Amino acid sequence: MENITCKGFKAAGIASGLKKNGGKDLGLIYSEVPATVAGVFTKNMVQAAPVLLDRERIKSGVCQAVIVNSGNANCCTGDQGMIDAIAMTRFAASGLKISEDLVMVASTGVIGQGLDTGKIKVAIPDLIKAAVPEGLNDLSEAIMTTDTVPKVVKRNGVIEGIPYKVTGVAKGSGMIRPDMATMLCFVLSDIKISHDLLTEALLSATDKSFNKITVDGDTSTNDTILVLANGLSGATVENPVHKEYFQIVLDEVLTSLAKMVVKDGEGATKLVEIFVRGALTAKDAYKIADTVSNSNLVKTALFGEDANWGRILAAAGRAGVKIDPYKSDIFFDDVMIAKNGMWCGEKAEAEASKILKNDEFTISVDLNMGQESASVFTCDFSVKYVKINADYRS
Amino acid sequence: MENITCKGFKAAGIASGLKKNGGKDLGLIYSEVPATVAGVFTKNMVQAAPVLLDRERIKSGVCQAVIVNSGNANCCTGDQGMIDAIAMTRFAASGLKISEDLVMVASTGVIGQGLDTGKIKVAIPDLIKAAVPEGLNDLSEAIMTTDTVPKVVKRNGVIEGIPYKVTGVAKGSGMIRPDMATMLCFVLSDIKISHDLLTEALLSATDKSFNKITVDGDTSTNDTILVLANGLSGATVENPVHKEYFQIVLDEVLTSLAKMVVKDGEGATKLVEIFVRGALTAKDAYKIADTVSNSNLVKTALFGEDANWGRILAAAGRAGVKIDPYKSDIFFDDVMIAKNGMWCGEKAEAEASKILKNDEFTISVDLNMGQESASVFTCDFSVKYVKINADYRS
Repeated sequence: MENITCKGFKAAGIASGLKKNGGKDLGLIYSEVPATVAGVFTKNMVQAAPVLLDRERIKSGVCQAVIVNSGNANCCTGDQGMIDAIAMTRFAASGLKISEDLVMVASTGVIGQGLDTGKIKVAIPDLIKAAVPEGLNDLSEAIMTTDTVPKVVKRNGVIEGIPYKVTGVAKGSGMIRPDMATMLCFVLSDIKISHDLLTEALLSATDKSFNKITVDGDTSTNDTILVLANGLSGATVENPVHKEYFQIVLDEVLTSLAKMVVKDGEGATKLVEIFVRGALTAKDAYKIADTVSNSNLVKTALFGEDANWGRILAAAGRAGVKIDPYKSDIFFDDVMIAKNGMWCGEKAEAEASKILKNDEFTISVDLNMGQESASVFTCDFSVKYVKINADYRS
Repeated sequence: MENITCKGFKAAGIASGLKKNGGKDLGLIYSEVPATVAGVFTKNMVQAAPVLLDRERIKSGVCQAVIVNSGNANCCTGDQGMIDAIAMTRFAASGLKISEDLVMVASTGVIGQGLDTGKIKVAIPDLIKAAVPEGLNDLSEAIMTTDTVPKVVKRNGVIEGIPYKVTGVAKGSGMIRPDMATMLCFVLSDIKISHDLLTEALLSATDKSFNKITVDGDTSTNDTILVLANGLSGATVENPVHKEYFQIVLDEVLTSLAKMVVKDGEGATKLVEIFVRGALTAKDAYKIADTVSNSNLVKTALFGEDANWGRILAAAGRAGVKIDPYKSDIFFDDVMIAKNGMWCGEKAEAEASKILKNDEFTISVDLNMGQESASVFTCDFSVKYVKINADYRS
């Protein structure tokens, strides 16, 4: 069992009957004292009720508990959906004897079907009873959908000699009947930090992690990242240097979780970093990395372990950025497969093919135009992905 | 055998040894007299040598022959690639005893490997001997890659009592080792029309056809559409009304070919029109139709015959256009599955599920915001697509 280790936090994950298979589907995070909170939410125009509610509540900057369910996304559920999201927080608040405003909520699962809050209400006493400092693994299971492994990351930091912890849990890459891959991530810390600084740090860490991964290019209506910092370690962010060190730890946690999410992408067998360098602007570099990493032709070639640099260059060519193919070099790890847009020959091909057999590697595209770069993590695209997403109802 | 029927045109398709399986891989189109020509080429920044050469030659507005090969895309082949593309036109010109400037060229196949023009040179006499008015089916086979059926369309028109013909052939949706789906399309007509009007008509027809289809969102380095009009029918476009009627015929030919390309998409089992209406602008409508039609989650659901409106709405929500999900309605053909962003219930679901079992149907998203609309044709995304594109080398 993974110990939360962050002082003053408890977590739980139990089965409430929302998942038809009887698996864990209801989770709770609770802090002994109100914590500073920061959040990042989906940019999709279609947003689930819990996302809309959290966006309101996070304005206070304070949160003491998070209740989360899988099996139903509570999305496209109209006014009743908002009533149900509020009800979830009310049940938790009542059981924990704290103010409803201090409770946030997340859901993942079926879209467009009403949430059975009755089951949640009934399960609340057991959920609260189950909350323990070591409960994070149970929570990580309760938010899993088609995830094949729970995702928990733990890191340590020190400020002015005082140790603190940052622990994160995530789910992703999971297709929920009948809908989409939802990413949920909860990060807990016993550091003391202001709402504004925590928000700043979270945005920066998100840009380096969850904004750099792709499984299938589809974004969810329910994507949510919440960071709670309860200050109980005594370590306090008081100046820019403290902030900088905390940022490194938070980056580490989010980046590790983001990679775990891609690696456990639906049907994925490989974790591949698409690195674009030599671009005129960082935005150009990102656009190309994003287009290559979402190309079905590139991703199926990765699944086929095919050193298919032509597909990579062609995807780069349609990213909406001016490039010169006859200046572009392409590498698998450190093996150059194409120089100035042309094939490097049989020997390079043979070496690249070996790299393609690995579980993790990097594809680099050097545009040789400027100094800017960007990278995106992606996975391969397998027969299993299609099966998971086509057969989910059958 | 499909008769070209357009006066003064001949076509051929033979095997020259470029395709390893010994299939037809070299094609020729020849007009008895120089024809007016118009073209549309890939917007990918990576463009194959034949595309670069055609872009130059088309400036003259005149073309008498097209030589085309499959099995090798002559792309990412540097200066030698351009030399080889010119050589192909020179071989054809020499055999046909016409000026090299009157010959255009297209290639589809492997990227990044040198083209064996020796094989083409040797095959030229046989190719020219094979050219007959009924040769279009042979040509359509010579440009096929993973296409499963040849694609030929024939339409008739009349101007001032004088009949003319428009005949088109296309390939698409085919993955070429090791590269990408290339779309080639050649349209022949015995109408008389100026280069400028023909170009205008082609651009307009392309917007209504090939710019409205998607198989996997990847564009090729070799995409080419050429229209040749040799005027031998005597029917002449002399005023806007003539042009308008010709436009209808050309639209018909290109739209039919484009749908055939999607329907024969790699691994595709269904042809689906994604129709977005009630948008504030046509551009908004197109952006949403494009995003929905390229969503892997939507396409895998289509393969699974799953009336998965949640994925459709969620894809619409990430198209970068402001929408109100609680104003949006979704239909499968004429069955409303979601009203105001919410599920219409079991009865609608059962009716929609029946429609999903058809080979062809329409998905409509009504945003209920404005009056503009757009549509895109797409196919489903099957296990076979991944197998075709992952296993091509194995």
